[in-house]
Amino acid sequence: RSGEMAKLTQLIDNEVFRAYATYTTIVLLKMMLMSLITAYFRITRKAFVNPEDTASFGKGESAKKYLRTDPDVERVRRGHLNDLENIVPFLGIGLLYALSGPELSTALLHFRIFAGARILHTFAYLIPLPQPGRGLSWAVGYAVTISMAYKVLKTALYL
Amino acid sequence: RSGEMAKLTQLIDNEVFRAYATYTTIVLLKMMLMSLITAYFRITRKAFVNPEDTASFGKGESAKKYLRTDPDVERVRRGHLNDLENIVPFLGIGLLYALSGPELSTALLHFRIFAGARILHTFAYLIPLPQPGRGLSWAVGYAVTISMAYKVLKTALYL
Amino acid sequence: RSGEMAKLTQLIDNEVFRAYATYTTIVLLKMMLMSLITAYFRITRKAFVNPEDTASFGKGESAKKYLRTDPDVERVRRGHLNDLENIVPFLGIGLLYALSGPELSTALLHFRIFAGARILHTFAYLIPLPQPGRGLSWAVGYAVTISMAYKVLKTALYL
Repeated sequence: RSGEMAKLTQLIDNEVFRAYATYTTIVLLKMMLMSLITAYFRITRKAFVNPEDTASFGKGESAKKYLRTDPDVERVRRGHLNDLENIVPFLGIGLLYALSGPELSTALLHFRIFAGARILHTFAYLIPLPQPGRGLSWAVGYAVTISMAYKVLKTALYL
Repeated sequence: RSGEMAKLTQLIDNEVFRAYATYTTIVLLKMMLMSLITAYFRITRKAFVNPEDTASFGKGESAKKYLRTDPDVERVRRGHLNDLENIVPFLGIGLLYALSGPELSTALLHFRIFAGARILHTFAYLIPLPQPGRGLSWAVGYAVTISMAYKVLKTALYL
Repeated sequence: RSGEMAKLTQLIDNEVFRAYATYTTIVLLKMMLMSLITAYFRITRKAFVNPEDTASFGKGESAKKYLRTDPDVERVRRGHLNDLENIVPFLGIGLLYALSGPELSTALLHFRIFAGARILHTFAYLIPLPQPGRGLSWAVGYAVTISMAYKVLKTALYL
């Protein structure tokens, strides 16, 4: 058993894999933060979607008025969905890229730019910054993922 | 080649990794079930979103009335999206956590509580249970994921 | 260090794992394409959701009329969300399946059918094809994922 565990530990000891683990955890935590921001705006704006969530405001019509959409809540939710659409490809393609034997410096460059771009994207969406701020930060993360996908297919292609 | 296969088999033979594989498969299957529940409510409530889905109900106005939203359909869809938002982080952070060499008993505790919390969350959303049932089950799964992320960053941090 | 790297390279040298890497990258790139198609329709249909995205069309009422939903945009977005709901389970269950020691030919069959079904699903959604075209392509990808999940649980079950 200790032999197996050693092998697993070797994977997490590899520097490229450790960098992947670090930046993936960071972007996933950032994505999870969107849930808390949504909850914050739902509570401060009193804008809910489920009737059971407004029960503490009383019964009937007095609570019903809080079942509504709010522009700030919807904005955070769009940012959250955009995270899902872009961080899921990074999660999968990034893992395969980390296992495809890239140079450590090249891999770090990819991971750092992706994480930075997604953090900028969140600020650009929530502040919001004028375009093309949000568009550019989205495109940078997208391009990094394409670059990693190219390396994976070049290394591993097996149709 | 058989040597390589042996190494892969060793990964799946590791007990922590097997536990990860088991609970990840369970929560992903649970998430997939949401698609079937959505389809069930769309058909029984006759509430569709794509015109081509109502073609069997006839042409023109007679079919058009089934292009509508239904509270039960929307509720399942919100539960499905909440699964995506929470199970994607578990998928990524849980994998890295399983590779970071945790104690088997600690890992099992994390995986079991997460899977239980997400199953409870689905029941709380679909029945629906009064709050804070849904909120608490969401928070427990969230906290478990944060705890795993902390272990990953403590073990693997490489910026 | 070179010993560790060799072990990682061995993983990506395994044919089943290479097939998983290839088809996962293909379906994730296909999913990412939905972002570009959404952007294309938003721009050509002039249908935006964020006020800052319409700033280039002028200020006030002249720009406000482009803050609207468009059926083509909404259709692509539904296809994108359906991808997330189905490709995320493939990403996780497929990885565990690839590590569970399946026959190469069986694994290729699963991966090829899943990727083909999801590509067909996108065409069926965007053209759109009459039902049950989209429904069947969805069901085929769903069934392939269930089949892989069964193999994972049979090989690795550890509750």
